[in-house]
Amino acid sequence: MITLDHSADRPLYQQIYEQARDHIMNGTYRVGTKLPPIRRLADDLEVSRNTIEAAYLQLSQEGYVTSRTGSGFVVEALDLTTEGTHGQQREVCCTFTKRLRQTSLWEDDGEGTEEGNGRSCRLHPASDSASDGEEEGREGPSPVPTEYDFTYGNLQGTGFPFQLWRRLTNEALFGCEAWRTGIYGDKLGERGLRKQIAQRIHASSGVNCHPAQVVVQAGTQAGLYNLLTLFDPSRDVIAMEEPGYDGARSVFENARFRLFPVPVYEGNEGFIESLRESHARLAYVTPSNQFPTGRILQMSARQRLLKWASAENAYVIEDDYCREFRYTTRPLPSLQSLDRDGRVIYMGTFSKALSPALRMSYLVLPPDLLFQWNKLFENHYPEVPWLSQTVLESYMEKGYWGKHLRRAQAQNKRKYQTLVGALQRHMGDRVDVMENGSGLHLLVGARDGRHQGELIERAAQAGVRVYGTSRYWMNARHPMQNYVLVGFSAIAEDKIEPGIERLARAWFD
Amino acid sequence: MITLDHSADRPLYQQIYEQARDHIMNGTYRVGTKLPPIRRLADDLEVSRNTIEAAYLQLSQEGYVTSRTGSGFVVEALDLTTEGTHGQQREVCCTFTKRLRQTSLWEDDGEGTEEGNGRSCRLHPASDSASDGEEEGREGPSPVPTEYDFTYGNLQGTGFPFQLWRRLTNEALFGCEAWRTGIYGDKLGERGLRKQIAQRIHASSGVNCHPAQVVVQAGTQAGLYNLLTLFDPSRDVIAMEEPGYDGARSVFENARFRLFPVPVYEGNEGFIESLRESHARLAYVTPSNQFPTGRILQMSARQRLLKWASAENAYVIEDDYCREFRYTTRPLPSLQSLDRDGRVIYMGTFSKALSPALRMSYLVLPPDLLFQWNKLFENHYPEVPWLSQTVLESYMEKGYWGKHLRRAQAQNKRKYQTLVGALQRHMGDRVDVMENGSGLHLLVGARDGRHQGELIERAAQAGVRVYGTSRYWMNARHPMQNYVLVGFSAIAEDKIEPGIERLARAWFD
Repeated sequence: MITLDHSADRPLYQQIYEQARDHIMNGTYRVGTKLPPIRRLADDLEVSRNTIEAAYLQLSQEGYVTSRTGSGFVVEALDLTTEGTHGQQREVCCTFTKRLRQTSLWEDDGEGTEEGNGRSCRLHPASDSASDGEEEGREGPSPVPTEYDFTYGNLQGTGFPFQLWRRLTNEALFGCEAWRTGIYGDKLGERGLRKQIAQRIHASSGVNCHPAQVVVQAGTQAGLYNLLTLFDPSRDVIAMEEPGYDGARSVFENARFRLFPVPVYEGNEGFIESLRESHARLAYVTPSNQFPTGRILQMSARQRLLKWASAENAYVIEDDYCREFRYTTRPLPSLQSLDRDGRVIYMGTFSKALSPALRMSYLVLPPDLLFQWNKLFENHYPEVPWLSQTVLESYMEKGYWGKHLRRAQAQNKRKYQTLVGALQRHMGDRVDVMENGSGLHLLVGARDGRHQGELIERAAQAGVRVYGTSRYWMNARHPMQNYVLVGFSAIAEDKIEPGIERLARAWFD
Repeated sequence: MITLDHSADRPLYQQIYEQARDHIMNGTYRVGTKLPPIRRLADDLEVSRNTIEAAYLQLSQEGYVTSRTGSGFVVEALDLTTEGTHGQQREVCCTFTKRLRQTSLWEDDGEGTEEGNGRSCRLHPASDSASDGEEEGREGPSPVPTEYDFTYGNLQGTGFPFQLWRRLTNEALFGCEAWRTGIYGDKLGERGLRKQIAQRIHASSGVNCHPAQVVVQAGTQAGLYNLLTLFDPSRDVIAMEEPGYDGARSVFENARFRLFPVPVYEGNEGFIESLRESHARLAYVTPSNQFPTGRILQMSARQRLLKWASAENAYVIEDDYCREFRYTTRPLPSLQSLDRDGRVIYMGTFSKALSPALRMSYLVLPPDLLFQWNKLFENHYPEVPWLSQTVLESYMEKGYWGKHLRRAQAQNKRKYQTLVGALQRHMGDRVDVMENGSGLHLLVGARDGRHQGELIERAAQAGVRVYGTSRYWMNARHPMQNYVLVGFSAIAEDKIEPGIERLARAWFD
């Protein structure tokens, strides 16, 4: 039932994955049936087992199949009806919830966790922000200078294309007609850049949009602020992932919207269930890499989520903030690409792959919201400078962006593997590692249930910085008290191994 | 192909819009084909033509269709493939964004108007503002290309220091430590830039502040949006100058604040009087050059204004947007410099003297608001790119800003004198000229009381563009119906005299 085209440029595992997926979608592989055993299929197709495993791994990560000990990979229900399939769903995420249940025994002393956290949204310790000074003050500086900083959010500046940026900036300032600096520019963003973005996200995430639906914004938070102008805080509730990105939550709160926490750790089914109870007009989600848990919203849940939005006349904000970074499987189709009713607002940023200092992100608005946006902001100027837009546009247009992305992906993959390996080697089964082969950080939980405050403090004493997770929860009595966040986007590759070794000694010796 | 559900709560035009949109998206309506003529569809569906027009208007504003004279509404290409079709892409993109910028569907010479007007909101009946769109819609297209554009808001790009900017950008990208591009930066703005700004506004406007009170923002409107987060739309009223800057009013409205118009027209006394009646928590004022009248708030009124704020525990937003440009007298002390009780929020911008394309402005917050700001935005990133901040910082720090300002002041003074002289010579006492020896525009009223619509239209017929004033009034029945706005910041000096001569003939021959 599966045939391979060895001349095709698509890798073999992907061809297998795609055909198996189609068989499941069109019912050829029925719910509950087993996929062909890895060994046998490998023999039949004359490929290595790794190839088959890669295909199956992706299928199971995307929720098409579940791996059941003894019976191999079993086809999951993708049934779109809102009831039913609870059994399988719970099955899928049982290991995760089991872990959380164990840890919930120690869930009490919620205090002191603030200290540990990267003090700025999305885990960036922002030693450059006024507030930190104060917190340092409260905390008292750790006596040991930080040697290994496993922060998240920042990048290794060394990855930034300084030379190219200089050249392209010169070209832009030299080549442009003078009047360009005399005007405010297109309030939606420079049209050329919007076209580049539209093409790129179409290729990378299957986002279907016209360049004019792309609105250039000065970062994720600025984009959310503007977006919320289209909604009414006195009436509209926003469903927020729990745990979730505190930087987005802060925007929603500042804009005075009521929030309804939707637990992601109870698995996809529970997520959809409580989403239904929320009566929300807006749902903020990070499906390709749930922040901070790193979990992936499965296909069936994506379909239910869209169904919910259409039924409730609600909108889904899909924050695809770090889709680029996947190391074991390919990403699922974006919600926007699955959306038929114009319910999805797609968001992307250049902060995770290029530079946070650029302050550039974008929204992709469905037609009716675009119409409202244009009316509300008719009289408004853009917030992103012409020059940065123009330079980024030619950077993309000349193909540098694609190359840069591949480099960044390869580098982060190496870092990811080093980190996972180091955690395994130095901590083994004394920790639970929460990861999905993607993103720029992991969550690490001490199995002995020690509180993150203690873990962070012991690390600091040893010159290692890891970060708290409490800030991502609306509920202070959350079940992740013993988890800390370990980022790898900013730390140098060769510091990861010794840093984790040091951390292991600090925690367990 | 289109069916209506009269029982649905969605308006009929929207049902038509949505179905037509889907037909276009799924290819039922093919690219290049015409939509059913308005009249016929109206008859078929038994709805009014306005309903069909509203639906088609939305389709066309969103770029799904273009209105072509003769052939009605034609389906646009929405294809978005990454390879090939680039030509088409650019095609689509252009028509589309032009559409978006032109609320007026009847105006088709987009390119011409773009450069002249630079789609800016402040005083721009540019093709991107609802009100103006309507005006122009009523007026119909101007058959004559614009030869003399007395726009306001934009600048002559030729004044921008391209060479220096290239050099300083190179230095910044060459000299900086790599990590700078790896972090988000200070959410209040780069420290060095804030210090430069604090020093400069102390020297120029007597503003007394610590650099920590200076918050760098991505333009006046972005700054106001953020500032309003500190206030409560359900409780706080904002007193707004009448007439006043529509760009600010639009921000207040989008943030859902109630506005109380305070007439500046009746002079300083009346202004303070009705301010007392407003019970406002915030007053937005432009004391050094009231926008658009150019009036200057007298010293006694400034003191009363501050007294009012202290007594009412209210705040005054002092938008000092073009203090730099005074040609006959020296400016009065800024409100901030007179304020003893921390009631004034001072605002400035780099858009009027350097470049609007920079998108950089600043707020100076009184201590108690700064404290609130830091709490509310604790968790937020800056909105202005590090690079533009750093380049501007060294531009100021090296003394270039001061030199540039003197050049710009001299140039605008010459333009101002030329304009005033030309108006005197060619129109004499047939017009009232409202000016105070400052700013970047004048208001010119026809003594014979002719309506601005006619004045604008006659000018357009002669290839001269002057701008309406109605958009600056909340009250449509305002007493400035016969006034138009004549800007001189963007037009070349040697075009002013012949342009006014042409205008005089168009109006009075």
